[in-house]
Amino acid sequence: MYHFTALVTCLAILFYLFTGIQVSKARAAFGIKVPATAGHPDFERVFRVQMNTLEWMPIFLPSLWLFAIYISDPFAAVLGLIWIAGRVLYLTGYSQAAAKRGTGFAIQALAATILWAGALGAIVWRLLHQ
Amino acid sequence: MYHFTALVTCLAILFYLFTGIQVSKARAAFGIKVPATAGHPDFERVFRVQMNTLEWMPIFLPSLWLFAIYISDPFAAVLGLIWIAGRVLYLTGYSQAAAKRGTGFAIQALAATILWAGALGAIVWRLLHQ
Amino acid sequence: MYHFTALVTCLAILFYLFTGIQVSKARAAFGIKVPATAGHPDFERVFRVQMNTLEWMPIFLPSLWLFAIYISDPFAAVLGLIWIAGRVLYLTGYSQAAAKRGTGFAIQALAATILWAGALGAIVWRLLHQ
Repeated sequence: MYHFTALVTCLAILFYLFTGIQVSKARAAFGIKVPATAGHPDFERVFRVQMNTLEWMPIFLPSLWLFAIYISDPFAAVLGLIWIAGRVLYLTGYSQAAAKRGTGFAIQALAATILWAGALGAIVWRLLHQ
Repeated sequence: MYHFTALVTCLAILFYLFTGIQVSKARAAFGIKVPATAGHPDFERVFRVQMNTLEWMPIFLPSLWLFAIYISDPFAAVLGLIWIAGRVLYLTGYSQAAAKRGTGFAIQALAATILWAGALGAIVWRLLHQ
Repeated sequence: MYHFTALVTCLAILFYLFTGIQVSKARAAFGIKVPATAGHPDFERVFRVQMNTLEWMPIFLPSLWLFAIYISDPFAAVLGLIWIAGRVLYLTGYSQAAAKRGTGFAIQALAATILWAGALGAIVWRLLHQ
């Protein structure tokens, strides 16, 4: 079983839900009524945080689980926690200014890339040595 | 095996595909040509139904499967069917008016939250009692 | 184990990441600054390629894996490669003109539909014969 990876998956979903709640609050704060998704730069940056997190979910979650299955449950979970930490930094930075989103983005991109590359390497190794 | 959860996964994908087909129809009906995703409120609401369903897929699907694996396949499937029913209500309501999207949204959010919280609780319990 | 399907999953993620990198390049080329996602038709088409690929990930990935588990790992992988090939055609076509996106879209939609329908059929068969 992959209890640590399952736990980190729940935490990643919780963070992602939080980015959506921030969008609802920003709608109220800046008077952007649904179905509009634009109209005020401060709202649009909060909206982009949610959208960018959504964009990375299909990269992060499958890579996390393939890494857990092919390499290690606890190592996958640690990299998953680093991904979430990078995402939190990205959220706090981007909410302030577009220029402050770089560090958090780089951390989460690195964590996701390690998960993806590790999984890919282990899968190829298994295919060659089975 | 998790036959019921697998079946509900296929049904959720079918519903989600349907929201995308509605967007294509709304493009034709309101003359919104690709790549534009705005230009008429009636189109934008149909587009937001698809987008919001997409936004919830990475919450719903992993929570559904973790619940199935850690708790119960048939219970997960029943909650999954409730999620789809809430989504259908959300689609029919939001397509008419933005104010009519609340009930369906609340139902699907509740179903997804139960799946998520149930999975999280079961994972933590296993980690503490393994 | 499902080594071939796992490998194709990594390749699909790689392609999807590439569509995101193309958006970054198009931002620079057409001067579309974050958080904006509109402003120049050539940028918007590249952005829509990424978004449309994102939209199909929750259809493709679960269908791919259910097909692999319920029917066949190598057959799922072959259909997954056809999906990626259709996506590449869609990217190159849509980047040139909106009218050139049809063939690639149809190929990937067909591959995803076969994965989905095959999985659904096999799941129902198992439920009836278990």
